[in-house]
Amino acid sequence: MKTINLAEKLGQFSSQSDPHVVANYNGNNLMVIKFQGEFPFHVHPDTDDFFSMLKGEIEMDFEGQSHTVKTGELFIVPKGITHRPRAKNECKVLLIKPKGEPNTGNPETAAHKPHI
Amino acid sequence: MKTINLAEKLGQFSSQSDPHVVANYNGNNLMVIKFQGEFPFHVHPDTDDFFSMLKGEIEMDFEGQSHTVKTGELFIVPKGITHRPRAKNECKVLLIKPKGEPNTGNPETAAHKPHI
Repeated sequence: MKTINLAEKLGQFSSQSDPHVVANYNGNNLMVIKFQGEFPFHVHPDTDDFFSMLKGEIEMDFEGQSHTVKTGELFIVPKGITHRPRAKNECKVLLIKPKGEPNTGNPETAAHKPHI
Repeated sequence: MKTINLAEKLGQFSSQSDPHVVANYNGNNLMVIKFQGEFPFHVHPDTDDFFSMLKGEIEMDFEGQSHTVKTGELFIVPKGITHRPRAKNECKVLLIKPKGEPNTGNPETAAHKPHI
């Protein structure tokens, strides 16, 4: 067991859209990621999608609406809802995903497997 | 769906050791709590215990060791491990717990049910 410093973990890499696992919780990976740009529209049929904004700002796009998520804010996308994260500038995010869940919700189109 | 501002949620109550549910993730409650003092030693037999330190500092006590958890840090207590959170000054924490899990791990000794 050890304390996990999120800023320290984020300081260990510079790559974007490249999730790094920092801990586990009940079969879920807790991951930090640096993100900038537009992720593809995608859906997770079997899991909610958890975003905790550590630094920066994203737009979470849905069909016909968009929500801004800023530093210190959370956003949960319910399972089955198509969404697209989009960030003008680099942001830093804590993600929670069931182990093995592809970041696009589809193993054939997954952009990155997380670093462990 | 909506963005959840954690500081705003914490600003809506002043009570300590009184978890407030702010969102749900795959059958888990995401809760914010203000905490000061010593929680009893306890164990969750069937779930890991997730702490994200939003502001302040706690000592996480175990038999024979203690870990400090500060602002911006995470701590995961694996299921089955007896532990005691302890804070000299009021701190603000994001918790994740399966719905219905008592905060002491034991329904007969649970100190508070979360506000929903």
